[in-house]
Amino acid sequence: MCDRNFGIGADGVIVAMPKGSAEYPGRVVEEEDYAMRMFNSDGTEPEMCGNGIRCLANFVAAIDDADPRAYKVGTLAGLIQPECKPDGQVAVDMGVPTLTPADVPTKLAATEDGAAVKSQMTVDGATWLATAVSMGNPHCVTFGREKGDEKGLAVDDMDLAAIGPSFESHETFPARTNTEFVEVVRRDYVKMRVWERGAGATLACGTGACATVVAGVLEGRTDRKCTVELPGGPLEIEWRESDSRVIMTGPAELVFYGEIDA
Amino acid sequence: MCDRNFGIGADGVIVAMPKGSAEYPGRVVEEEDYAMRMFNSDGTEPEMCGNGIRCLANFVAAIDDADPRAYKVGTLAGLIQPECKPDGQVAVDMGVPTLTPADVPTKLAATEDGAAVKSQMTVDGATWLATAVSMGNPHCVTFGREKGDEKGLAVDDMDLAAIGPSFESHETFPARTNTEFVEVVRRDYVKMRVWERGAGATLACGTGACATVVAGVLEGRTDRKCTVELPGGPLEIEWRESDSRVIMTGPAELVFYGEIDA
Repeated sequence: MCDRNFGIGADGVIVAMPKGSAEYPGRVVEEEDYAMRMFNSDGTEPEMCGNGIRCLANFVAAIDDADPRAYKVGTLAGLIQPECKPDGQVAVDMGVPTLTPADVPTKLAATEDGAAVKSQMTVDGATWLATAVSMGNPHCVTFGREKGDEKGLAVDDMDLAAIGPSFESHETFPARTNTEFVEVVRRDYVKMRVWERGAGATLACGTGACATVVAGVLEGRTDRKCTVELPGGPLEIEWRESDSRVIMTGPAELVFYGEIDA
Repeated sequence: MCDRNFGIGADGVIVAMPKGSAEYPGRVVEEEDYAMRMFNSDGTEPEMCGNGIRCLANFVAAIDDADPRAYKVGTLAGLIQPECKPDGQVAVDMGVPTLTPADVPTKLAATEDGAAVKSQMTVDGATWLATAVSMGNPHCVTFGREKGDEKGLAVDDMDLAAIGPSFESHETFPARTNTEFVEVVRRDYVKMRVWERGAGATLACGTGACATVVAGVLEGRTDRKCTVELPGGPLEIEWRESDSRVIMTGPAELVFYGEIDA
């Protein structure tokens, strides 16, 4: 189905399943409205997909008549709650980020409040400053190298394919990692490019956008409400102060309805 | 619709239209069962698409109850006749090849029987031997250079992107050209890779497979019935002796049915 020449073509397939029909760790079936399974084009199953769950919410909203169109969806990363807004945007409560290094997981040492913030990381001979965040999956967020990037990265000019794999398989991230390269335009607007674990350079990564703002706040570079511009378009991220949850808001659009013989 | 990231994703869109509803030169509406229009992903409209018309035949066969499932389809290259076989293959009468150089069009001089066969063509400093064929669109077919390729091309090892553009825009093909690089495995089996005009290296080119066998026969290298192996799979080509028409047989498979709001 994901083959772009002999199939439909996609980055992955998401299955919207009836309540209780998918197995995932720590599931509380009673609480969920739907379960979600996702498969990447290489057949692997990620914990969660922040952009994908917006599409799932848009899809189920078109076939049920919930009001408000807010859903509790069981995923491998726990219960996630997307909500379709009247303007067509979908807000997703992406949960509380995990910052304890052992749980990200990363071998980078905690530098403040139990989190690895602006930690030194030697990659291909240069020392980068990175903050480690898990949004259910591991992220290594960097605003640049210790020397040479004091004025910030220029992410449009970066050769992600040259540096991305060295971050992805870096010894300090034992489960491998997604990596976000971030350019701060304003405290409420950043440009980010992502090298995704197992997928390489992609047009967007929802959990990566969330991790970016969490890292931006921890490093004192961004506000808690911040727009993250990705090659595929902008996402609005808020790392809520009241309960430490990350809310991601972005579009989800129907391209077409299809039917396949499985 | 053709965008592979924000749309459905395709090389092009084919519209199966009711008899008489499309305009094309020399049309004889009374004779056609359907009309076909096609648009490439860049918005241009090619004269015809040999692989695409197999898909059109497969598509209309699923919704009408013609018997046999053979159709006369009006295209910009005239009336084309695809037929769905019981084994799922679709045979297409691709018509009579045009070999007169001025009509291909090519500036290569006729070398035998009014056709440009094994003509010398200097490309990036090397002399290639090429045969010019039109199947409604221009083709430059080569089995190798004059010197260095006496044992034949090894098409799997070729860097098409390096040489293809120089053929495509070669001064001897004023309307630009598709170029086929051909390796003869047996007289009834060749491997071909194509650099398509306006599209670059593609997985398959139906008219190019036809032109390949026409050139193979003219150069004395292949039989009139010959399998052409392309990166996207094999096509069976016959340049029929009785009426000089080229019959192409290959698969067409339903991937999915879809519906869009236009």
